[in-house]
Formats: sequence, C-alpha cells, structure tokens
Amino acid sequence: MPVLRQIRERFAKEKPLTGLRVAACLHVTSETANLLLALQDGGAETAICASNPLSTQDDVAAALVHEYGIPTFAIKGEDSETYYSHINSALDTKPHITMDDGADLVATLHTDRTDALDGLIGGSEETTTGVIRLRSLAEAGKLKYPIIAVNDADTKHFFDNRYGTGQSTLDGITRATNILWAGKTVVLAGYGWCGRGVALRARGMGAQTVVTEINPIRALEAAMDGHQVMSMDNAAKIGDIFITLTGGIKAVGRQHIEVMKDGAILANSGHFNVEIDIPALEELADGKQEVRPFVDEYLMGDGRRLNLLGEGRLINLAAAEGHPSAVMDMSFADQALSAEYLAQFAHSLKPQVYDVPRDIDEEVGRLKLLSMGITIDTLTAEQEEYLGSWEVGT
Amino acid sequence: MPVLRQIRERFAKEKPLTGLRVAACLHVTSETANLLLALQDGGAETAICASNPLSTQDDVAAALVHEYGIPTFAIKGEDSETYYSHINSALDTKPHITMDDGADLVATLHTDRTDALDGLIGGSEETTTGVIRLRSLAEAGKLKYPIIAVNDADTKHFFDNRYGTGQSTLDGITRATNILWAGKTVVLAGYGWCGRGVALRARGMGAQTVVTEINPIRALEAAMDGHQVMSMDNAAKIGDIFITLTGGIKAVGRQHIEVMKDGAILANSGHFNVEIDIPALEELADGKQEVRPFVDEYLMGDGRRLNLLGEGRLINLAAAEGHPSAVMDMSFADQALSAEYLAQFAHSLKPQVYDVPRDIDEEVGRLKLLSMGITIDTLTAEQEEYLGSWEVGT
Amino acid sequence: MPVLRQIRERFAKEKPLTGLRVAACLHVTSETANLLLALQDGGAETAICASNPLSTQDDVAAALVHEYGIPTFAIKGEDSETYYSHINSALDTKPHITMDDGADLVATLHTDRTDALDGLIGGSEETTTGVIRLRSLAEAGKLKYPIIAVNDADTKHFFDNRYGTGQSTLDGITRATNILWAGKTVVLAGYGWCGRGVALRARGMGAQTVVTEINPIRALEAAMDGHQVMSMDNAAKIGDIFITLTGGIKAVGRQHIEVMKDGAILANSGHFNVEIDIPALEELADGKQEVRPFVDEYLMGDGRRLNLLGEGRLINLAAAEGHPSAVMDMSFADQALSAEYLAQFAHSLKPQVYDVPRDIDEEVGRLKLLSMGITIDTLTAEQEEYLGSWEVGT
Amino acid sequence: MPVLRQIRERFAKEKPLTGLRVAACLHVTSETANLLLALQDGGAETAICASNPLSTQDDVAAALVHEYGIPTFAIKGEDSETYYSHINSALDTKPHITMDDGADLVATLHTDRTDALDGLIGGSEETTTGVIRLRSLAEAGKLKYPIIAVNDADTKHFFDNRYGTGQSTLDGITRATNILWAGKTVVLAGYGWCGRGVALRARGMGAQTVVTEINPIRALEAAMDGHQVMSMDNAAKIGDIFITLTGGIKAVGRQHIEVMKDGAILANSGHFNVEIDIPALEELADGKQEVRPFVDEYLMGDGRRLNLLGEGRLINLAAAEGHPSAVMDMSFADQALSAEYLAQFAHSLKPQVYDVPRDIDEEVGRLKLLSMGITIDTLTAEQEEYLGSWEVGT
Repeated sequence: MPVLRQIRERFAKEKPLTGLRVAACLHVTSETANLLLALQDGGAETAICASNPLSTQDDVAAALVHEYGIPTFAIKGEDSETYYSHINSALDTKPHITMDDGADLVATLHTDRTDALDGLIGGSEETTTGVIRLRSLAEAGKLKYPIIAVNDADTKHFFDNRYGTGQSTLDGITRATNILWAGKTVVLAGYGWCGRGVALRARGMGAQTVVTEINPIRALEAAMDGHQVMSMDNAAKIGDIFITLTGGIKAVGRQHIEVMKDGAILANSGHFNVEIDIPALEELADGKQEVRPFVDEYLMGDGRRLNLLGEGRLINLAAAEGHPSAVMDMSFADQALSAEYLAQFAHSLKPQVYDVPRDIDEEVGRLKLLSMGITIDTLTAEQEEYLGSWEVGT
Repeated sequence: MPVLRQIRERFAKEKPLTGLRVAACLHVTSETANLLLALQDGGAETAICASNPLSTQDDVAAALVHEYGIPTFAIKGEDSETYYSHINSALDTKPHITMDDGADLVATLHTDRTDALDGLIGGSEETTTGVIRLRSLAEAGKLKYPIIAVNDADTKHFFDNRYGTGQSTLDGITRATNILWAGKTVVLAGYGWCGRGVALRARGMGAQTVVTEINPIRALEAAMDGHQVMSMDNAAKIGDIFITLTGGIKAVGRQHIEVMKDGAILANSGHFNVEIDIPALEELADGKQEVRPFVDEYLMGDGRRLNLLGEGRLINLAAAEGHPSAVMDMSFADQALSAEYLAQFAHSLKPQVYDVPRDIDEEVGRLKLLSMGITIDTLTAEQEEYLGSWEVGT
Repeated sequence: MPVLRQIRERFAKEKPLTGLRVAACLHVTSETANLLLALQDGGAETAICASNPLSTQDDVAAALVHEYGIPTFAIKGEDSETYYSHINSALDTKPHITMDDGADLVATLHTDRTDALDGLIGGSEETTTGVIRLRSLAEAGKLKYPIIAVNDADTKHFFDNRYGTGQSTLDGITRATNILWAGKTVVLAGYGWCGRGVALRARGMGAQTVVTEINPIRALEAAMDGHQVMSMDNAAKIGDIFITLTGGIKAVGRQHIEVMKDGAILANSGHFNVEIDIPALEELADGKQEVRPFVDEYLMGDGRRLNLLGEGRLINLAAAEGHPSAVMDMSFADQALSAEYLAQFAHSLKPQVYDVPRDIDEEVGRLKLLSMGITIDTLTAEQEEYLGSWEVGT
Repeated sequence: MPVLRQIRERFAKEKPLTGLRVAACLHVTSETANLLLALQDGGAETAICASNPLSTQDDVAAALVHEYGIPTFAIKGEDSETYYSHINSALDTKPHITMDDGADLVATLHTDRTDALDGLIGGSEETTTGVIRLRSLAEAGKLKYPIIAVNDADTKHFFDNRYGTGQSTLDGITRATNILWAGKTVVLAGYGWCGRGVALRARGMGAQTVVTEINPIRALEAAMDGHQVMSMDNAAKIGDIFITLTGGIKAVGRQHIEVMKDGAILANSGHFNVEIDIPALEELADGKQEVRPFVDEYLMGDGRRLNLLGEGRLINLAAAEGHPSAVMDMSFADQALSAEYLAQFAHSLKPQVYDVPRDIDEEVGRLKLLSMGITIDTLTAEQEEYLGSWEVGT
C-alpha cells in the first residue's frame, strides 16, 4: 500500500491526530490494519469493530490486539447479536471520529447509543450504501455530526467500486464455484460504479452480460456499453449467474427465484444480505446442502437446484480476499487524509454529509501515479491561460 | 430522431415557445434542422449560423431557407471573416434565446455586439469547450444572462461525447485515410468523456492505445482501463495516429511534431483547430500536398511526411457526417426542453451557468429507452422505503 | 503497400515471370493495380476483369489502360451480361496463369471457355467462397489445372478476412447509414474468419452481438467469445442489423424477413448477393425507395420498412473502399509470390487445390513486421534443441 | 461434466473397452476421476499416475483408491524421484492404452521401460508440449505405437487451451498474490492458443498486454489484436507480471531477470518449470522467502525483489484448481471417445501421431451445445447443394 505508506510516514512526523480517539467499523483485514496503524502513527487512539459478520480475517484481528494494542471487536462468522455488541464496544471507547462502512455504527449512535454522541467531532463513510443511509438521515434533519462521504471521492468510487469490486466479485465467485465464465449468461442487478465494474470484467472473461436497472439514464448507458438490458422478470429466466449490486433489497425476489434455470448461481456484491430474497428461497426450497465451501445448493420443490453463494453476503469478502490492497490503498488514503481534515476543520462543519475536498482527492491520485512510475503532462502557462479565457474562439 | 419527434409533437400542440426568437450557432446539419423545426412548431421564430466553418451541409442550409423560411447564415468552407459576419447576422435577428456550440455566439455578444444583449432571457451551450469558456466568463462576473449547460446533461455528455464522438472520430479518420486500425498505435490527448469514448472505440478496432493527460485522477483511470499513459513528449515518438481531445491548445506542440515518426497522422476531435500547433507544423515543413480529400501531407525538412487531417478542425464533421443522428437526438431533445424551461423560468434565473434540470435529463432517458423497445424495472414501494430509510442495517 | 513494394523491387531485378501471361479476375481497385504493376515489373503480361459488378473504381480502370497499357475489362455497375462478357475478354488474352476472386473466371473456363484451358499452367484464388467452389470441382475430378488457395495462407485469411473484413464491413454500413452502433443488436450469420472479425469489431463499437452458425464447434466458440448464439429463426426477431458472412445462400431467408423488426438493416459481407434472399424481399414488399446512397428502403405489405444495403452485394466494396490497403498488401504479396512459385514449379503440380507454401507465408509475415518496425525474438540454439527433442521431461 | 456424463452412460451400456488396460499419466483431479470412471464403466481396467508433481488433489487420489479401487500413484508435492517411480508403477500395470499429459509416460516407455511396449495398441496425448515431443519422436522414426493428439482436437485446444488456460492462469496468479490486474503491464511469452487466451483475459481484467513471440505470423496477429509486440529483452524492463506460455525453455532467461523492475511477478503457464530460468534466478539472488503461499520472493543482489509463483510450475494447477470442469469436460470427452476409437481401429494404425477424427470432434461439440441449451441452424437441402456446387457464380 504505497500511497498510505507515504501518508503514514508524514503522519509519524507531523502527528496531526494527537489527542483524538477514532472508532472504525470496517472490514477487519490486513489493509484496514494498515489504515489503523497510520492513524496511530498520526497520534490517534483507535478501536475497531467489524462492518460485516463474515469478512473478518481472524489472524489480523489477533495481531491488532496482541502486536499493536488496538481494541478489536470482531470474529469471522459472528452472529447478529455479537455483531451489534461489538459495535457497542467500539462506541464505548468514546470516539471523537467515526469511520463507517455501511453506516451501522452511525445508525447505532443515532438510536441505541445517543449517549456516545457527545464528544464526536466528525466521521467518514466508506460505501455507497452507507452514504445513501446518511443522506436520508441528514435530509430528515436527524444527523447529529458532520460526515465526509469518502465513498464519493473520485479516487475511491472510480477505483474501489469499479476496478476493485469488479475484479474481486468475479474472483469470489470463481473461488467458490470454479465455473468457466466464457459462454455464461451473467445477470447484473444495478449499473452503478460497482455494477459497471463487474459487467466490464464479466465480459472480459467471455461472459454474456445482462443488466437490470431502475434508472433510465444508467439503463441507457448499459445498453450503449453493449450489454443486454431488460427487466429482472425477463432476465431471471435466462441467467446462469445472478449478481446483485443495487444497495437495495430484493433485487432478486421470489418471483425471480421461481423461474430461474436449474443450476443457476446467486451471489450478492452490493452491500447487505437482503439484495437476494433469501427467506423466499428458503421457503421455496425443500432443503439445502453445502456442496463446496460458500456454496449452498437449494433443492427446490420442483426439482431445480439453485446455488446461493456466501449466504448472500458480500461474495468478494466471503469467498475471496476482498479488494486487492492496491485499491484499498487509495480508499484508505482518502480515509486518513479525511481524518486529518476533520481534526483541523471539523469545528467549522455542520451536521451534514460532505464531499471529500478536491485537494485530498487529487493528492491521492498524484501519490498513486508516483507509485506506478507514470509521468503525466502539466499545463504550460500558455495552455492554462487559454483554458481560463473566454475570448479566444474559432 | 424519435426522441425529438415525440417532443416536437407535443410542442406543436402546446406552443410553449410562442413569441420567442431563438438564434442558434450550431453545426448546420440535417439533425440541427430537426431541432429548429421542433422549436418552430413550438411557436418560436428561429435563425441559424454555423458554429464551425467546415461543418455546414450546404443542401441542408438551402432547404432551411427555401423550404422552411429559416434565416440561415452558413456555407461550407467559409473563411474566418465570413464566419463572424454570419454570427453577426444571426444576432441581428434580436434573439431572446441563444443556442451555442463552442460559445462563439456568446463571446461575440459580450464583446462586439453588446447592443444585442437587450431582450435576451437565456441561452444554452452544447459543448464542453463552450461551457469552460462560459464558466470562465461567469467567474469573472461578466456573463450577462443565464445559460444552461446542455453539455453537462447526462443524456448529452454520457452519450454524445462518449459514444457519438467515439464512433464518429474513428469514422472521420477512416474515411479520410482508409487506414487499418488494427495494430496501429493511437495516441489520445485527453481522457475526458470524448477521450474515453475514442479510446474505447480505438481499442475496439484493434489499435494499441496511449493516453496523455494533465489530471492525475483521469490519468489513473486511463491506466486502469488498460491504456498506456505517458507524457506527450514520450508518446510523440511512438504514435502512428494522434487525436487531440483536450479543449485546450497545442496538445500536440512543436516539440512533439519534431520527433514524430514518418507517416504519422494528426487529427483533432476536441473543439477548435488550435489543439494541434499547425503554425509550427507549417513552419517546420518544406511543403504540403493534398494526397486524399481532407489529408494534407506535410513534407518535413528532415524528409519525414506528416499527415494533417481536415486542417485540424473537428475530424468527424470535416471528413464524416458528424455524430450519428441517434446521439444528436438526445442532445437536441435536451436543447428543446431547455428552451421550454427558459421560456417558463428564465425570469427567476441569474446570469450564471446552470445545469440541465434533473427532470429534463431523466425524461430524455425515458423517451430514448421507449424508442429502443427496452423495458426496465421500477422500485416497489418496499424497495423505495428501504432506500429512503437509515434504520435498516446489517 | 510496403510489403508488395519490396517484392516488386525484387521482381524488377529478377524478372521471374518473363514470358507469362496473367489474367486476373479481381476487384479493380488501386490495391489491385499495385499487384498488376508488380507482376508486370516481374516480366508478365497482364489483363484484368472485375470480380464483382459493383466494386470497380473507374478511375483506376482508366489509369490501368491509359497509363500502364493493361487490358482492363470492368466498369462500376455493369450488368450480369457485361460482367460475363468481360470475363470472356480476359480469357481471350490466352493466359498462362489465372488469379481469381470467387472462382468465376475458373468456372467460366471449365464450362463455356474450355478452349482457353490450353496453355494454362496454374492459378490462384483469393477467397473462401472461391476455394470452396474449387475444392468441389477438384473433388468431382473436373479441375483441369493446379490452383493455389491464396485465401488459406495465414497471412491472408488471418488478416484480410478477420481484420480487413471486420473493419471494412462496419465502415461500409456506417457510411451507408450513419447509424450509431452502440446499443444496437447486430446479428452475424456465420462465424468463420470473416464472421469472427466482424463480431469483434461490432462489439468493439458497443453493439450487442448475436451469432448464427451451422457448425457446432464454431457455434461453441462464438458462445465462449461472449456472443449470443441462436438459430436465425430466433435472431430474426431481435436484430437491428443483419450481416451475412456464410459463403452460402439464403442465410437470411423469406421466413426471417417476415418477422424482422421495423427499420431493420440487411447487409451482406460474405461473397455473392445470394446470402440474403432478395427475391423474397422484393416479393414481400409493396415498393422500395433509395433513402440514401446504397440504402434501399423496402416498404413491406404489413407496414414495416426494411433497409437493404448495396443491393445485397459486398457492403465494404459497395459503400466503402473495400479492405484497407494494409491488408490487401499482405494478400497480394501472397498472390505475387504464388505466381512466382507457379512460374518455377507448376510443371510438377497436379490439377488440384494447393496450399500456399509455408515459406511464402512466413516471408510475407516477416516483410510486414519489418514495415511496422516490430522486432521479435528468435530461438537460441539451446531452445531450438529443446523443442526438437523428446527426452527432456518434468 | 455433462458431456462426459452422456458418454459414460453410453459406455456403461455398450462396454466398448472391455478387456483393455489403460494407464493414464494425468493431473490427478476430480475431473480426471470422472474420466477414469467413464473408462471403467466402458469396461476398461485403469491405473493413474500424476503428470505434474504439484497438481495432485490428495483427496481425489485417496477416493480413487479406496472408493473405486483404481491403482493411483500420486501425491501432491512429490519429488522428481517419486514422480518417476510413480510413472514406472503405472507402466507395471501393463497397459494396452496410454493417456499422457506432457509425454512423460511415453518418454519413459521409449527409454527405461521399453519392456512395457509389448501389448500397447495405442495412446493419446493431452497437451501441446506433449504433441511436440511426440512428433519429434515420430519424425526420428522412434515412436513405437500410434498416438492420437487429443490436444489438436478443435474441441480441446480451442476451448481448453484458450478459455481454460486463459481464465485459470489469471485465477492462479490472483489467488497467489491478490494483485489488482487493472493498470498492470502483463508480459506474455508466446501467442499460441494458451497465450491468446491469457492475453484476452488479462486485457479483460484491465491490464496492458505485451506479447513476445518467435513466429512472425503469430507476432503479427498479436499486434493486430491490439497487444504490444516486442522482444523479451525490451519487455523485461517494463513488465509488472510475466507469464510464460511457450512450451520451450528459458522464455524468461538470465538477461531478462537482470533487468526486471523491483516487485515483478514471474509465473509459468506453459508446461514444464523450465520456461523461466529458475537456476539463474537462484544464482542472481541473495536469498528468498515465501511471502504468501505459492509466492517466493527472491531478494536480488542489487536490492530488487522478484516474486516467483508456484516454483515455476503450472500456476493454474499450483495455486488454483486447474481448468474449470467445463473445459475438462470437453477434453476428456475427446479422450474417452479416442480410447473407444483405438479399441476399434488401433490395429489399422501405424506408429504415428494421429489427429482426432473429425466425427469425434463434432460429436463433442454437439453434446456440449446440447448441455448449454443452445440451438443452431442446419443447412437446408438447397443450401447444401449450393455449397457443394461450383457452377453458381456472381
């Protein structure tokens, strides 16, 4: 993670986070560990809980506790009760700054744990889903402190959502099933940045791609990118593999499950395990068996077999290693610089959802290009003047 | 142009532009003619001048005058003096609304023809370059009336700039040169929406693609899209074909021309004919000859031959037919609906650059999908509620 | 045409074709002219007739006659009678060697003009279709002299059929219609080398691709390359654009025409104008009009409009410029070297269809790489020994 | 494996292999187990040894022995001595038919175990490398019994080599390293079917692709497919990831290792672990450590770190699961039908390398399409007659 490393080195010298407590609700992986260590080097006290019951790398959790003394509340496969108790434990550390991945920490803060709101100066949110929830909270006038939408940084969503999710979603499904992608019909629910990325990579592996959408402009874009676009009612009948990337619920619902082909594969790469209607699947099935790790084969009443991967949780985290560290490097560089920004400027912010400042975004881009050995052009004075002027025409 | 047709039919009934004069400075093509007729059916009086000296389809210009009685000031190949006299003639019609493609009309209004500012209620601008110029004018506090940046509508720049320019740029170069794209090294200056589109299509034709940029985030994106990214100083030495798409000047400059390979091809698809430093090319050359229509072969002092296409003007308009009508259909639907919006709401707008209202953008998307026979999903009440809520979590 | 140029220079010195008469039945284009001049420089007397009634470039035909004194029997748009009288005129020159593009010359020789068989030492054939006809003739024991299947050379069909036809077919359709490819459903009948090439380029332009085939292995390949594969009966209902590339007849037949969508476009890039069942189209239509050059709009009895391009003849030749000279360069280098080979070795050949000798094929490849400035590796002695041995194992 | 399953069902009824002993030297995986069971159901006695020291799935080996009573000589990670003793054990079963994957079994038969040649009626070979070795043996006049080159079947090499190796090579490297492919420069040594497949998939994941070749026609094809083509001397300096697919030795040699970038990754997907010059790597390095499973980081004398994956053995087998069963299904269907063919016709064959009969190849294609639910066209009588005739022309 060369970008975060450069930031960490500067933090170690400048200590911009001295005196601040940060509570992170993130996937507990080796990449996240690097972020925590950067914050720690910057002078912060940190604590972490898992943002997903299945995504914890237990060896990383252990190392955070034993080698770095960071309070870590996470264990792979924890149940829902443990999951929320872990969030509460993280809040017990009385953080000044929160870092969230899906907004569960913030939601808990605004419901059961309003006691912990005191002292908070700001937070950041890593995901599309979380940002949607937070904006909804803000619009309702209920958000209590400023939050930076790290997800919306160009160096985050252009890269993490598109290239990271694109590659790692296929990786997770390949590891779980060992299917050949070439010749398969892959149905993608949702054509946001994640959906675009997965569609691109699925085609790159030789699959035929079908996109479903609710937004007319995204649907048009998918069609002009060469994907088939149709309603899920129609797509359900022809897909070999279904991947949900909507951030919503029941993108694959009961009426779709009822008409799928024998052998169809269902995976979620959106956010929560509600994008596929698993209760309906359970109800329609006579039984299920785990045919490979992370593959539950449901035997339907009519004899069809449908395969649900990773219990409908994020497949790239469940069955693979999540995002490659190269993309987390950029996202977490945005996180670290946003924390520094909050330390400096939170007092002047309102309880709203903020964009990552453009300067931070471009700085992350510059550090990344540097690490790739790529040189780009800079505007000459003459070119800059031209772009800034309006007199010069045809 | 099925989208514009639907709008035109409604305009013919509702006459939303009654009593308004519109002066358009656009490429005089059959697509533009359709826009003018829609405005006319909507009750407007219209006049048009060319936005580019080379892009006029003379038969269309003639038909506009003789069949539809629309004052038309444009002739293919007009010189710079005629070009500006035509702009002045269009302004002489005392328009209430301007439609611009590159902001030459607006620039003239704000310099030589401030007399024509009276009576103006609003305008619209079709291109990236024009919007940059207008924002610069607005920031300087000098813009005198509100302008809608049609270019920035999703249904415009996502489709026109990317798919339209992407395809038609290659088309123009193919028609001019009849080269085989497969195996060629294509250097693209600029990775905005136009650059992305041309890069995608160039690779789709089997070329190797090299991107130059000044923006670190776009440069990163190009690299992760699989293109080689480097400075133009390095790209100049290896390119077979150079295409400028920056909206700026001298993206291909003297020092680049000096090191290009024998036989290199230079084309512009950005906006003005200043993206390639043609004066430097002329100066470095011993002579030139037209080897095919739209191909000037420059014989350089050192014996190399460099081919400049379409005199450095927009190659898709110079050597092909501009954008396919399918993309102009959407852009011009945005134009027509923006004119209607100005007729209704201009009085409440300030002299600034405005985005196309989201409603207009989505309406155009919906009309386009309809014309393609594509059905998409709509959110159920349950799904809508979920997305609007912040309580539901992991 | 740098490859042919190098061969021509050698021919001019070595005169390997002295005393031989060559009759060519090829598309009369500037590229073909270069081939004829190379043969002439090699010492041959040459004559040419058109291999397609629509593909003649009249200015080239004129130049061949007036500047180079080559008997040329071809005029763009000639009718069937003139076409065959031209073939007869070419045979009247009493050739020793024939060069054919579709085997019409050879077919005439074996039917109406058996008188001209005397003196023939060998021939060559440029196309897949022609080679199929010749093999059929040879298998029937009726072929009277040896013919080299230039079409089957790797440096021909890998490049001409795939990259040449791939690009130029789209180019022809674009010029004829100015459609936007992105988002269109393109149905390709046939997945041979031409079909693969067009499929690749259609996808490269953003289209959705559907392939029909009769060969199970090619059908599988198409599916695994990510194309939809189905019967033409099903494809007929969903296609926006149909392109036939089978070398056979009625790939698009009456029952397909009956179910096509309003506005569908039909083009042939296979060989003859029998791939689309034009008589059925005429019969089912109430009338037709030319809406753009090379676009006949048929008004069907049920109100649908179907667009036939270039009268069903090769669309890349009818509406564009045929193959880019870069691919013809390689094919015609194979032709020239095959003529030289026949001059030397025809006496030892039997009346069969022969492959292009491997040495000629690789020589053309080497000359082409040289012209592109590409350096490749060569085996070290150690590597060569390894590949030639069978003892070395795991 | 639906194709093999259909064959197995027929074999179980027809028992075409009754009385024959088959010795297989193949990767010991669950797919291979299916092949053995099909042969067994067909009446054969079978035995198996590993064709690669690292590719054995030990649980499969155990099941073959304990559940199916098939003598199995293989253990993952066996050393060279054990590897060859296992081959000898397989030969001790006195087979009538051999099935080889790389020709180690055949090579042993022709050197140390000529005693086991008695009784052999025929064999088959799965890989390109093995076929090269066998042809070399046959050309030297030393091959002692007929062998069918299963590798050369269209349903094998078009699918297994291209789509199978293409996907699984990337899969192996991803699992070993968790790199992000987007933006990486991937150098592919060799552009045969495997190389083409890996190049296609690497680009499909967003990488920049560089190809090295020794064959001019393949080099040209790579260039026209949009890859950079250059000598390995030049590629060595710019690659992030090197993948060898040549079937030869030292495609990555000492002089290349010397100039690679810090952090470069080296993987082999060709055949043997001699494609990368590992002895040179060992010699140039000061030490190495395993940084992740299957990743040995070499610390070079000059401070650079180079990562060798899977000890230079086939990376898709070492770090992933080999080919997806979908492609092995077709290869092994060819194997099973070839064994049946040998049982019937071996007596009429000579000690040469034979192609898979066309009927077998097409039958496998048909069975596969059937399993995918794809319907294709068949020629009408009229179409068939046309293709078989030579009289019909322009």
